[in-house]
Amino acid sequence: MYNFEYQNPVKIIFGKGQIAKLAVEVPKESKILLTYGGGSIFKNGVYDQVKAALKGYEVLEFGGIEPNPLYETCMKAVELVKREKVDFLLAVGGGSVLDATKFISAAACYTQGDPWEFLVHRFEISITAAIPIGTVLTLPATGSEMNGTAVISRQSTQEKLAFASLLVMPKFSILDPECVFSLPDRQVANGIADAFVHVMEQYLTFPVNSPLQDRLAEGILLTLVEEGPKVLANRTDYDAAANFMWSATLALNGLIGMGVPQDWATHGIGHELTAYHGIDHARTLAVVLPGMMQIRRRQKEAKILQYGERIWGITSGSTDERIDRAIEKTVAFFESLEIPTRLVDYQVPAETIDRIVARFEQRGTRMGETREIDSAETRRILEDRL
Amino acid sequence: MYNFEYQNPVKIIFGKGQIAKLAVEVPKESKILLTYGGGSIFKNGVYDQVKAALKGYEVLEFGGIEPNPLYETCMKAVELVKREKVDFLLAVGGGSVLDATKFISAAACYTQGDPWEFLVHRFEISITAAIPIGTVLTLPATGSEMNGTAVISRQSTQEKLAFASLLVMPKFSILDPECVFSLPDRQVANGIADAFVHVMEQYLTFPVNSPLQDRLAEGILLTLVEEGPKVLANRTDYDAAANFMWSATLALNGLIGMGVPQDWATHGIGHELTAYHGIDHARTLAVVLPGMMQIRRRQKEAKILQYGERIWGITSGSTDERIDRAIEKTVAFFESLEIPTRLVDYQVPAETIDRIVARFEQRGTRMGETREIDSAETRRILEDRL
Repeated sequence: MYNFEYQNPVKIIFGKGQIAKLAVEVPKESKILLTYGGGSIFKNGVYDQVKAALKGYEVLEFGGIEPNPLYETCMKAVELVKREKVDFLLAVGGGSVLDATKFISAAACYTQGDPWEFLVHRFEISITAAIPIGTVLTLPATGSEMNGTAVISRQSTQEKLAFASLLVMPKFSILDPECVFSLPDRQVANGIADAFVHVMEQYLTFPVNSPLQDRLAEGILLTLVEEGPKVLANRTDYDAAANFMWSATLALNGLIGMGVPQDWATHGIGHELTAYHGIDHARTLAVVLPGMMQIRRRQKEAKILQYGERIWGITSGSTDERIDRAIEKTVAFFESLEIPTRLVDYQVPAETIDRIVARFEQRGTRMGETREIDSAETRRILEDRL
Repeated sequence: MYNFEYQNPVKIIFGKGQIAKLAVEVPKESKILLTYGGGSIFKNGVYDQVKAALKGYEVLEFGGIEPNPLYETCMKAVELVKREKVDFLLAVGGGSVLDATKFISAAACYTQGDPWEFLVHRFEISITAAIPIGTVLTLPATGSEMNGTAVISRQSTQEKLAFASLLVMPKFSILDPECVFSLPDRQVANGIADAFVHVMEQYLTFPVNSPLQDRLAEGILLTLVEEGPKVLANRTDYDAAANFMWSATLALNGLIGMGVPQDWATHGIGHELTAYHGIDHARTLAVVLPGMMQIRRRQKEAKILQYGERIWGITSGSTDERIDRAIEKTVAFFESLEIPTRLVDYQVPAETIDRIVARFEQRGTRMGETREIDSAETRRILEDRL
């Protein structure tokens, strides 16, 4: 096991009816900016619950945060926060709303330049102040509710990049599984796939003798495989919704990745597909991951075999046969969620691969658990998914 | 799954060489009281590492904290803390030192009466202030390094009781697996058993459709079963020591118990055996747990069967045969650690059962996941272990 540091102070408030606890959690006298997305919270009753809980607070609103939230949108909220001297941000929505709110939180306190620098110079710029955030999660998927990471896109440059800071971790996150009841199939499927790949990127590397982390990761994968389809089949199955929601949170609250190598190249490549073609984030991961397993099958051999055995019960056949079956099972799982897994399914032309490869070359991008995934390896991975 | 709230802000600093980070973690200008136990830290080099890291700080020392730490001992440290205006407590040791330090931390700030009240009136007294604590863990076992619970004994009344507060959670805990290298067999064995039973008490209840929590718990149990004997066989196996250490921490940092029923009756009864006979804490748990499984076999049936199958591979036989085998496997595991599991092995006479039963009757004690374990059920459990 590698050395590590782990700290996650986010308070999780989980269960039905918990939105009412907002009144306990948001500091009194706060001037709140409530951030939200396309307006589903008006239809599913969440907005009404939030407003009822916040009676007596001064609440401004900022809606219209899009999926793959845009820097351009966030900067409008930053202006509002500064002008109105907002001192608490309440994000009500899914990962996009939460990520946008994290960016707004840090950007509103940043005076040394353009906050876009957080994303392009993420390892050089240290964020020293942020407006406190609380969240009400309506869509299990990204794990943003219990971490300090955010991914932001920029329309003008067709870029999609991440930043991270302990300061933008939510003070609290309210997770009410009943929010799942009104989600469309596509969002549930995306959430399952997103959480699944988050676990894989902290698990499918090489062994470092960390059996507990492996089992925690496998526990989340198995739960997603079992409970995900139940949620899709019956949207009001509370237990299934709760198990899905808690799995998505633990998939990316940092815990399972402690002390082990990580490989975020699937995300790195997937972000480019979203940046150029606007494909749903989770769908890009379902496209890229099988290519990653195929092209990196030698480097990831031991863990792919363990994954095949413990998640899919693959115990016989040669090493290559078992790896092939593990990849097939992974593809079949995504397809069972009605998520296509080939670039052609999304009308992505081969020229996009050239553009992504050229961009990675220009940036000097090197990804993966051993930093071996460069632009050439990225080409092989994407060409495997044509 | 039940509703729950979870927050654990303890910063974990894990790995070899991490004790040097004390200088980063302890606030500058702190006046530190270093608390420790019987002096093993002088022999294994930990004291020297701590002192080297704290060069430039003002450090007082308070040693001699005993296993099952005594109220009477803690109160001497409380006097010292008040007199010297100590503003940071650094606990260097195992669970007993950490628990004592938590009590000292809260007791030194308590002005409304005798701090023993925290323990006898734990649900009525709210702790409102505590001196910040950091820890350097030398003995994996209790999980005290990542929770807000402490167990304190009182010599004058032969009582052993627990209290809990978010305020006594360590600010940071340094976990260096190399501290395991110099532990005697008995302490390693006790640590494995203690952590194992912590998991069981959050797991072996009744199903509430929480597959993820179950798998997290099972992951820790399996890791302890596999890695524990490796630590006993080869004390300098770093990976085994690290896996054991991390398992013991995650066994009782609260996570696996969220949203599920819990049954702390094995601890409740075990504490009495320590209070009356001074038996090592972990050993009392290894005595009581099999009796708990035997007497509560109907109420815990579904989870005992799941435990038997997933931890010990018991998949055939009638329900009762499978439960019997799960109990036998549990006993055999403790005995393989050289921990005896019968009261007679510790020279505990039958009259002790009468004393414990009388005490529980007087206190109106009701324990277990359904509060059904009263004094009469306690008698049945203990008589099963004669």
